[in-house]
Amino acid sequence: MDSRNGSETSQESDVKSFFRSAPPLQNGDLISANLRQFVDRNSRRLESGDPIKVVCVTSGGTTVPLEQRCVRYIDNFSSGYRGAASTEYFIKAGYSVIFLYRRGSCQPYCRYLLEDSFLDFFELNEESMIQVPESHATVVKTAIKDYHKAVEEGLLLKISFTTIFEYLQILKMVATSMSCFGQHGMFYLCAAVSDFYVPWESMAKHKIQSAGGPLDMRLNQVPKMLSVLRKEWAPSAFCISFKLETDPDILLQKADMALKKYQMHVVVANELATYKDEVIVVTAGGKTTVRRHGKDQDLEEQLIDLLVKEHKEYIG
Amino acid sequence: MDSRNGSETSQESDVKSFFRSAPPLQNGDLISANLRQFVDRNSRRLESGDPIKVVCVTSGGTTVPLEQRCVRYIDNFSSGYRGAASTEYFIKAGYSVIFLYRRGSCQPYCRYLLEDSFLDFFELNEESMIQVPESHATVVKTAIKDYHKAVEEGLLLKISFTTIFEYLQILKMVATSMSCFGQHGMFYLCAAVSDFYVPWESMAKHKIQSAGGPLDMRLNQVPKMLSVLRKEWAPSAFCISFKLETDPDILLQKADMALKKYQMHVVVANELATYKDEVIVVTAGGKTTVRRHGKDQDLEEQLIDLLVKEHKEYIG
Repeated sequence: MDSRNGSETSQESDVKSFFRSAPPLQNGDLISANLRQFVDRNSRRLESGDPIKVVCVTSGGTTVPLEQRCVRYIDNFSSGYRGAASTEYFIKAGYSVIFLYRRGSCQPYCRYLLEDSFLDFFELNEESMIQVPESHATVVKTAIKDYHKAVEEGLLLKISFTTIFEYLQILKMVATSMSCFGQHGMFYLCAAVSDFYVPWESMAKHKIQSAGGPLDMRLNQVPKMLSVLRKEWAPSAFCISFKLETDPDILLQKADMALKKYQMHVVVANELATYKDEVIVVTAGGKTTVRRHGKDQDLEEQLIDLLVKEHKEYIG
Repeated sequence: MDSRNGSETSQESDVKSFFRSAPPLQNGDLISANLRQFVDRNSRRLESGDPIKVVCVTSGGTTVPLEQRCVRYIDNFSSGYRGAASTEYFIKAGYSVIFLYRRGSCQPYCRYLLEDSFLDFFELNEESMIQVPESHATVVKTAIKDYHKAVEEGLLLKISFTTIFEYLQILKMVATSMSCFGQHGMFYLCAAVSDFYVPWESMAKHKIQSAGGPLDMRLNQVPKMLSVLRKEWAPSAFCISFKLETDPDILLQKADMALKKYQMHVVVANELATYKDEVIVVTAGGKTTVRRHGKDQDLEEQLIDLLVKEHKEYIG
C-alpha cells in the first residue's frame, strides 16, 4: 500500500501548506470567544443529562481572491437559502445550531424578508408607527419572534465568512471545539466551497491591469478538507456533505465516490436545475429521493426530518 | 490617421461581437416597459417646463460566469454603498434616478438597515405589534418614509443585474431611452465593471470538474463601452465615470487617461484603502479633492453637491 500512503502524505502536506499560507483571520479572537461561550453552555446541558444535539450548518458560497488587496475574486453560486431554511428546521427539531454563513447570504427566519426591496414590507401609519401590510403581517411577525427566541435561548450562533481562507480556518476552529459533543455533534456542510484557489503568496499584490490584452490564470486545487474533518478534527461527529452538479449523468456517481472517499455518513446529491424540488440522500445503506410536497413547502422540512432520524440511529 | 481609424474599427467590432454573443436578457420586456413608463412620466414633466434632471446611477460589481449553467463566476468587489448613498442625495437635489444595481447590493434608504442581522432592528411588544428599539427608531422610520415617498412620486426606478452581459445590455437600453433628456440626462457610473470575461460560446457548458489538477483559464478583455455610451448611446448626456485602483501611484494618471480617452466630463478617482474618506474629482478644468467631514457624514453628500453644480454649468 505504498502508493496509498504516499498519496495521503501528499494530501496532508497540501492541507498544511494551505493553512500555513492563508492570511490570518482578522476577527479570530472574537469568533473564538463566541464559540467557547456557545460550546460551554451546550456542553453543560449535555453533562446535566439533557440529550441535546449540536449541528454546524455551513451555508453560501466561498470566494477566492485573485488579488491580495482584493478587487476581483472567483465566487461559487449559492444563495444560502438551503442553509438558512435547514437551520430553522434543525432548531425546531431541538438542535443547537452554529450557522457558518457567507456574508450577505440568506439568513434563518428572514428568508422571505431579505430582498432588495424589503422596505416594501414596512410602512408608517398616521401616528408615525411602523406597520406591516396585512398581506405580510404573519410572516414578518413570526420571523421576528422566532429569531429572537432562538438567539435568547442560546440555540443559534451565527459566524460569517467570505473567502475560502476564512471559511476553512473557521470550520477547523468550530470542528475541533465541537469534539466535546462526540456523536451528538453533526456537520451539515451545504456551503458551496471553491475547488480552485490562488495561493496567497503567489497572488498579485495590486489590481490586475486590463491594458495588457487577455488574462491567463492558473488556479490550484483546494485540498479536500472533508477527509481531515472526519479523521482529525471531529472523528465522532455525524457528517453530511452535499454534491451539486449541473450534469445529471455524473451526479450519483460523484455522490457515491464522495461517500466512500471522504467517509461521509450521508451525501446529499442535488442538480442545479432542480435543487429546490428534489434531492437524493445517499448513505451506505442506499438512496432515498426527497421531494417537496408543493410550491409553498420547503424541501428542507422533509430532508432535516430524515437526517435527524439517521443521526438518532447513529447515536443509538 | 490610418492606425487610429483602424483601432476604432476593431473596437467597434469588439463591441458588436460582445452583444451578438451575449445570452438574451431574461426579463427584457419587463425592464423595457418599466423604463418606458419612467421616461415618459419624466419627459412630460420636462416638456411642461419643469427643469427636471434625470440620472442613471450604476452600482455594485458585475459578475463574469465561467460556466453556462453558472456555478462559478468571477466577481468584482463592490458593496454598492456609494451608489445607494449617491441615489439618496441625487433625489434630495431634485433628480429623478434610474438605479441600475447589482442584485443583493446596498439599496438607497436602507444602507443602515440591510445587514445580515437586520431582524435585530425589530421586536414585538406585548400586543404583538412590531416595534423598533428606541436607539434605531429615527433611522428606521426615516428610511421607510423616504423610500415610499421616492417611489410614489416616480423619482426612483430600480433595475437589477448580476452578470456583465445583463449589465451592459441594460445600460444600453437605459442610455438610448434617456437620449430624450438631452443635456438634462446624466450618467453616474460607479458600478465596478469587470475588465475580463469569457465569451458565452467558448464557455464550459457544465460545472468545471476539479479532478483534473490545476485549472488554466484565458479571459478576454471586455470592450470599453464608455466610448460607445458617449458617442452613440447618449451623446448629449453629462457623463461621470469612476476609477478605482489599489496602487495610489498610478491612480491619477489612469483617471486623466480615462477622461481623455473616453471623453468623460468627470472622472472620480478613488483608492481602495481610502475610498470612503476621500476622492479626487478630475475634470478638464482641474482636480478637486473631496473629503468627508466626519465619521458620521457621507462623502457622497459633498460629492453630489459638486457634481450637481458641474451639471448645471454644462446645461447652462
